[in-house]
Parts: sequence; structure tokens; C-alpha cells
Amino acid sequence: MSGLEIFPIDGIPEVRAGDDLAGLIATAAPDLRDGDVVVVTQKVVSKAEGAMAEIDASDPRGHKALVEEQSVRVVRRRGDLIISETRHGFVCANAGVDLSNVDEGWAALLPEDSDRSARRLRDGLRAALGVEVAIIVSDTFGRPWRRGLTDVAIGCAGIHAIVDLRGTEDSRGRELQVTEVCVVDELAAAAELVMGKATGVAAAVVRGVESSWLGRGEVHGEIVRPPQEDLFR
Amino acid sequence: MSGLEIFPIDGIPEVRAGDDLAGLIATAAPDLRDGDVVVVTQKVVSKAEGAMAEIDASDPRGHKALVEEQSVRVVRRRGDLIISETRHGFVCANAGVDLSNVDEGWAALLPEDSDRSARRLRDGLRAALGVEVAIIVSDTFGRPWRRGLTDVAIGCAGIHAIVDLRGTEDSRGRELQVTEVCVVDELAAAAELVMGKATGVAAAVVRGVESSWLGRGEVHGEIVRPPQEDLFR
Repeated sequence: MSGLEIFPIDGIPEVRAGDDLAGLIATAAPDLRDGDVVVVTQKVVSKAEGAMAEIDASDPRGHKALVEEQSVRVVRRRGDLIISETRHGFVCANAGVDLSNVDEGWAALLPEDSDRSARRLRDGLRAALGVEVAIIVSDTFGRPWRRGLTDVAIGCAGIHAIVDLRGTEDSRGRELQVTEVCVVDELAAAAELVMGKATGVAAAVVRGVESSWLGRGEVHGEIVRPPQEDLFR
Repeated sequence: MSGLEIFPIDGIPEVRAGDDLAGLIATAAPDLRDGDVVVVTQKVVSKAEGAMAEIDASDPRGHKALVEEQSVRVVRRRGDLIISETRHGFVCANAGVDLSNVDEGWAALLPEDSDRSARRLRDGLRAALGVEVAIIVSDTFGRPWRRGLTDVAIGCAGIHAIVDLRGTEDSRGRELQVTEVCVVDELAAAAELVMGKATGVAAAVVRGVESSWLGRGEVHGEIVRPPQEDLFR
């Protein structure tokens, strides 16, 4: 496999509920090509879909109540920090409720179904530009045992979430033990490197992705671990 | 910030204990430039450093005993799967003991100190090519709640492991809540996308990384969560 290019999509304007996000991306990135992976941050997807809640940002109790409302299970709690499971099965801080880069008095929630959001963006970009791209909806999560946040995929379309290399021979010709690589999380992380929180860049393109990874895929069914195989509930 | 390029370093030969890994990388990638981030997989670092153990691969008890020897604490156990903490503070499956892509009868262990390994590679590439690059030593870890593996950094040099955007204003001019991005994990993940387990490519270059991220950094002190702030012990 040869190299990848990753570049930000500049010029997506402020997004409001009801906006045609695929159209805004198409206008900002008219040179998208077949096989490109377009990574779009959860924040603009939630804004376009109106997945927002009014909140009194000066009242910590309001934020806490909203986080609990968005949670199906609290996993850990320490001080103001709540790590909980959302109804989508994601385990993250504050159930994905986010006060940054939104209007005063509002909080962004996770999209209702980020895989569906990704499919719609893929359809919209096909309609607008005549291209077959893959879409990843990304969000910024913490993780146990390691400090710092990384971006992961919360939805995808047109790409397998996990590429299963189990059974592929290693370079010695022996069978590999387990190598199920979560390529959409790696792509979300890679895209974050060119976006940056403070610059307001809401999408990026990864060009050159292995074509065998493209196809039907979703985060919900492929990545979210069902309770019976989860050792960290 | 503009874009990134990521490309594999082909042509690193089979690595043996005592080999000059920086020299092998320099020969395979003579065009490295100042500011490049070179991501090197743990496997070749361990081989070059002789961080290997003899093992009877046909005897599962031998593997299990080695995993327990490499662990300071077992975090979870189910069937043959052991998730444990290594003496470096990493929590991962099988304490990093790896049987793939090594000679029959041997297992690769984690390097004794991967930050030191990264510093030595950085010094070696400066000596060989006269360039100031950053180094990340990467390994493939699973994670709770999400299926699939991703590459993370287990050592680094010449780059901050975590870029602290706390206090940077968001695009509305309000202070961001918390945005400490673990850029070395995102770079390790990005590099994995061009390496691929079965192809034997052991290193990759990320070119175009934000220059303010470069500087003194380490995985051990920056990323490994101390027990008192770890909610998932």
C-alpha cells in the first residue's frame, strides 16, 4: 500500500438546525474523489440535525441533569465527572453532552443515529458531486488508563468499521493470532490531527485509503461491544 | 494548519538482536526531513534490543507463564485472555507478549523503556542523516467497550505526547472545557493505516505535523495514568 494524504476542509460556515450539511461540505470541497474518506465531527452533524438541548450553562445542576438524562447507565463517577453509557452503547464522559463551540444556553447532544447520519451525508455527497465517498462521524473521547483524548468514530458509511485480518498470514507464513483493526477509529484519529479544536474546522479528507476497506459498514453493529463480551462494565 | 502526508518506509530488512535499527531506517528512508514524525513498531524495536524470550509455542502454559511474568497486576481474565498491567504501567492484553512475526520458539516482549528507545532512534537518525525528526514507538492495543484494535504510542521522543489545549479559546471566544489531545496516539493510529500487519512494513513517516507539537515529550510521564486518577483499576 502506498501513502495517504489528509487535509482539512476549510470554509464550512456556521451550521444551524435544518442546514444541508452535505451541500455545505460539497461547496467547501468540490474536488472530492471516489474513494475519499470524509471525516465529519459530531458537533456539526448534531447542529445540522438539531440534536441540541437548551441548558442554563451557569447552573452546574442543569448540565448534570442533562448528562443523566442522556445516559442509560453511569459507569463511573468522581466529583463532577460522569462516565456513562449512552443509549447508543457508547461509554464516554458526560454522555457526549458538549458545551464548547455552541451558542450560549445550548448544549450539543450526540446524533440520534450516527451511522444513519453518515449514510445520509454519503448519499448527499453522491447527489451533489457524483462521487462515491466514505463518511466517518467522529467524536472526542477519553479512555481508561491513558491520559489525553483521541477522536474515534461514532458513525460510518461506505467503509468497514473493522478490517478483520484474522487468518491472514503474517510475513513468516504463519497464521496471525488476532488482528481486527478498527480502521474507522484510526481514520478519525488521523483526521483530528489536521482539524484542531480551536480553529473551527469541522471536516477533513483522508485520500488513498486501501480500496478493500470500502463497502458496507457501521459503527453500531461492528464496534460497540455487547454486554456479554464486555469485561469492563 | 494544512495537510499531512503519511507513507510507509519500505525496505527495512529482517531485524536481529544488536542491529543498528536507526541505521536500517536511515538507509531505507534517506529523504527524511526535519520535522518528520517517524513511527516505528514495537516489534522491530524489541527485536533490535533483544527484548525476546524463548517459549514453547505449542504449549499454552508456557505462553501464559510468560504473560504472568511480564505483568505486575492482572486487571481482567477470561478464558485464555489476560488483560494486565505491565511494569511500564501499560494495560493491555497478554502484557504485550507477542508471537506473531517472530521466529518459531520466540516471543517478542515490550522494550524495557520505549521512551529511551525512541530517544536513541532520534539520536541515531540525527547522526546518520543530519535531520531532527520525532520518533514514536507504536504497539497494537485493544480497549474496553469498543471492538477492534488500534495502534497507540508506547514511547516517543522529540514530540509532546499530549498537546494541552485547555484554556485555548474556542471559535466563540469562550474558554474550552478540556481538550488535552493525545497526539502521539493519534499519530500512531494514522501510521498504522499505511503499515498493515501482514506486509512486514515496520515504520512509517508522518510529514507536515504542526511544529508547535515538536519538543521534549515522553509517553511514560505524560500518558500513563497514575493509580490515584485511574477510575478503572
